[in-house]
Amino acid sequence: MPAPDRIIALLSGPDQPGLVARVSGWVYARGGNILHADQHRDSDAEIFFQRVEWIPEGDHAEEMDNFRRYAEDELSMTGHVALSSERPKVAIMVSKIEHCFHDIILRFKSGELPGKLVAVISNHEDLRSATEGYGLPFYHISVTKDRKAQAEAEQLAVIHQHGAQLVLMARYMQVLSDDFLAQVGCPVINIHHSFLPAFAGGKPYHQAYRRGVKLIGATAHYATADLDEGPIIAQDVARVTHRHGPSELVRRGRDLEKLVFSQAIRWHLEHRILVYHNKTVVFD
Amino acid sequence: MPAPDRIIALLSGPDQPGLVARVSGWVYARGGNILHADQHRDSDAEIFFQRVEWIPEGDHAEEMDNFRRYAEDELSMTGHVALSSERPKVAIMVSKIEHCFHDIILRFKSGELPGKLVAVISNHEDLRSATEGYGLPFYHISVTKDRKAQAEAEQLAVIHQHGAQLVLMARYMQVLSDDFLAQVGCPVINIHHSFLPAFAGGKPYHQAYRRGVKLIGATAHYATADLDEGPIIAQDVARVTHRHGPSELVRRGRDLEKLVFSQAIRWHLEHRILVYHNKTVVFD
Amino acid sequence: MPAPDRIIALLSGPDQPGLVARVSGWVYARGGNILHADQHRDSDAEIFFQRVEWIPEGDHAEEMDNFRRYAEDELSMTGHVALSSERPKVAIMVSKIEHCFHDIILRFKSGELPGKLVAVISNHEDLRSATEGYGLPFYHISVTKDRKAQAEAEQLAVIHQHGAQLVLMARYMQVLSDDFLAQVGCPVINIHHSFLPAFAGGKPYHQAYRRGVKLIGATAHYATADLDEGPIIAQDVARVTHRHGPSELVRRGRDLEKLVFSQAIRWHLEHRILVYHNKTVVFD
Amino acid sequence: MPAPDRIIALLSGPDQPGLVARVSGWVYARGGNILHADQHRDSDAEIFFQRVEWIPEGDHAEEMDNFRRYAEDELSMTGHVALSSERPKVAIMVSKIEHCFHDIILRFKSGELPGKLVAVISNHEDLRSATEGYGLPFYHISVTKDRKAQAEAEQLAVIHQHGAQLVLMARYMQVLSDDFLAQVGCPVINIHHSFLPAFAGGKPYHQAYRRGVKLIGATAHYATADLDEGPIIAQDVARVTHRHGPSELVRRGRDLEKLVFSQAIRWHLEHRILVYHNKTVVFD
Repeated sequence: MPAPDRIIALLSGPDQPGLVARVSGWVYARGGNILHADQHRDSDAEIFFQRVEWIPEGDHAEEMDNFRRYAEDELSMTGHVALSSERPKVAIMVSKIEHCFHDIILRFKSGELPGKLVAVISNHEDLRSATEGYGLPFYHISVTKDRKAQAEAEQLAVIHQHGAQLVLMARYMQVLSDDFLAQVGCPVINIHHSFLPAFAGGKPYHQAYRRGVKLIGATAHYATADLDEGPIIAQDVARVTHRHGPSELVRRGRDLEKLVFSQAIRWHLEHRILVYHNKTVVFD
Repeated sequence: MPAPDRIIALLSGPDQPGLVARVSGWVYARGGNILHADQHRDSDAEIFFQRVEWIPEGDHAEEMDNFRRYAEDELSMTGHVALSSERPKVAIMVSKIEHCFHDIILRFKSGELPGKLVAVISNHEDLRSATEGYGLPFYHISVTKDRKAQAEAEQLAVIHQHGAQLVLMARYMQVLSDDFLAQVGCPVINIHHSFLPAFAGGKPYHQAYRRGVKLIGATAHYATADLDEGPIIAQDVARVTHRHGPSELVRRGRDLEKLVFSQAIRWHLEHRILVYHNKTVVFD
Repeated sequence: MPAPDRIIALLSGPDQPGLVARVSGWVYARGGNILHADQHRDSDAEIFFQRVEWIPEGDHAEEMDNFRRYAEDELSMTGHVALSSERPKVAIMVSKIEHCFHDIILRFKSGELPGKLVAVISNHEDLRSATEGYGLPFYHISVTKDRKAQAEAEQLAVIHQHGAQLVLMARYMQVLSDDFLAQVGCPVINIHHSFLPAFAGGKPYHQAYRRGVKLIGATAHYATADLDEGPIIAQDVARVTHRHGPSELVRRGRDLEKLVFSQAIRWHLEHRILVYHNKTVVFD
Repeated sequence: MPAPDRIIALLSGPDQPGLVARVSGWVYARGGNILHADQHRDSDAEIFFQRVEWIPEGDHAEEMDNFRRYAEDELSMTGHVALSSERPKVAIMVSKIEHCFHDIILRFKSGELPGKLVAVISNHEDLRSATEGYGLPFYHISVTKDRKAQAEAEQLAVIHQHGAQLVLMARYMQVLSDDFLAQVGCPVINIHHSFLPAFAGGKPYHQAYRRGVKLIGATAHYATADLDEGPIIAQDVARVTHRHGPSELVRRGRDLEKLVFSQAIRWHLEHRILVYHNKTVVFD
């Protein structure tokens, strides 16, 4: 027997007395059964955050609407409300580097990531046959300096045509313009090494090797217009020594990137992340 | 200006609908301001756990009593209710090995651990002058096979005379009898290597070295009558290689033990731990 | 330009004065250029271990023979001597659980693991099409209680027919008999959770959850006749909390298993591992 | 019976064929017994590094001289040669923050760090009684903007008068001038948070909290004239979440700093570190 469908609400708004009591009281009074509830208060910013997961009595869609109205009208909170059974549509952008590409597709296919892959977009042809082997449509959209705007328009067209609700930059090696991010209409998650701002520019692992670092790291974050690096979702590191040359650092970096990227995607798809002031609350 | 005093409640009991709403509703209705609330449900065991931290309106002591009665009578929950400003009395038991002894005393003295050291009990004289240098009373109680029961009675007398509310086994190398644990009347936290049950008996790091393990670990847990190892509070590991001989494993084990032990003590003194079925819920 | 081919020698034997000098002196006197040299001495066991990697002057095959003879006849060391360009043949044994299966195949295909996959053997049909999609031959050999010996004979036939020099148990859920291990004629690497001996038997992650552990782990080791668990090659752990139910422990365990298993395979294929007294020296 | 005294040599110089063979051959020919030998080659920089540890036949001091001459004259290597029984004199510089101060003093006193503390220098009076309680001389040297040069001259006088061979900046909160570092005449090890260059300036943990990082770290390095941050010796990180406010980050940072700082000091005192091109080779 599958677990019964749950409503998951992510709320945030100005802190005020009684929010925990009012939200849980609302659910309880309408016969709902709260399975998880987690909250956080940023006392400097005076913002309150809450994640509630419950089995409603009665119709799910109706209760979601009711709760949305309650949160906005009565609590002045902005809310994201979803069903645990939803499988949001996900598009992947990738260049040639394929470790994150394979890793996340396999995780989606095994059911570990609760979403539905709908399209792979690449600025190179290299991963076409692998993509099609996975049974996914592949869109090659060439990106060059003089057709960057045109290429981004084509990418957006694919994303919108497939109704993607999440875009994953699986080592997509082009910078997305602020225009793209303003028009994409859904969250974009990116993954990269963690050396910024220390080792900006090309070949970061080679720069880290030359500097003699003893740790390398990876960071997953939301891509945001106007920001070099948007809100951080997940980070991890691995220990390295003088014995590890640049290619070994790159190899270890790949494993970190896979873990951190898939962790961030899972948290997003499980509705565990709230964003504010260019940072995140992750209700793990 | 110091933070205002808060009431902290740790509740557990049979799961039932509306517990989150009822607890937070009770606090809200009486003018309290909830700062943190965390809950957990073990759906197999059908037990509900909650930690709530709030600033009450009105007299703290009275509200604590009121809440205790409410939790027990209305919710059928067992509750531990405390003030954030309390500094429970803490006794240390130690033998000769001194790294955890120094580490936790320094952490108490720096204010990092919210408690009040009242006594050091040892089965050896070695740490008397260090203890007295820290300004603490030192009790040497010799433990030999034929006076073990007598020694434990003396230890209990010291603990009770000082009104200790927590006993720390800071590498105390004697097994406490079930009788001792039944009579001590307060929680006892122990720290040891994590090789059980693999490497029971003496010189566990030497056994681990002989087995060629690649990780060593430390575990902090509550000591409990009738159980070889009580509920686990915290664990950590460090990576080792063939280059690390037994003495290096012991040295790295010391650092692990200090970190894990002090972490467990902090969580306990901050009222973050609930125990059931020989395991813990830690509201970090 | 590819790196020039190197000879890699792994030596072990009774400790005696001058081994470092004699080995390096031999290579130097014959015009070889040592790129890496690493050694270890177990002073309790009085055994010496060395890994040397060099570019020989003259014919590689001849120098390998010369060195083998020198190590055995002059130094009384047993030696494993290989070329860095070799790609040993590797067979995979798998049941139904597929995360390690996909992970290692992708790592071999990307060139990250220096070996050549030759066959996949399974006691179930489930992974046939995935295997064939990767362009590898798939052998379904059913294993039931009354045909276990027969099944192992068939497995050995496939392994020998393909000339496999390494067998990987990628979550192969059957115990290999001592007979199988005695006849397989090449190393066998296994991966499993790290809870042994604490949580032997089925559903180890469920047992760990019930016990309330705060860490889960994975161990890769050589499978050896007559031993429940052979020499440990690699281990890693991940932190868990009371919030993580059994299925989340299983999921995190999968990521650990992939990392630890692939790490162990890489070290083996790069000729970095020496085995003695049921443990390993890993020259990382 | 104590372990016999060993000679430890750290060598570096231009790479050339036969260095391993020539060094080990020299020791062997003179009746020495090599216990550990480790080497590294930076193939880009064409520099060779070696650490050798052996029991000489004959007089230790004489063999050390002989080896030094051999390394310099015959191999064109610069060498640091020491006895394993040496206990170099160590001075501590500290301000008011005391966690590293206590931690390293206790490690020296327990014998874990092979050196001899000779003096504590501080720009504040706060740690005088603790220092004297440990039986060490305390020098209060006030540092203000207009007497900075004067203060540094006094600090150097104390360091030189005590013959310190290593200076530890145990959270000493003043920048040492290039002049000071040029004249100190011995290595200086510093410890700080790892957020540079991201969060330069005051209150780095508060900056990290505001940015929403998921990891905090500590770095130990040699202090060097003309460099903001000298060669990195050791680094470590700890995981944090949105629940951890700035004071919790500071507390976790303290534990990291103690571990990383003591690790770096141990490696230095065990003659395991070679420095080149603003980075380190650590023969762990």
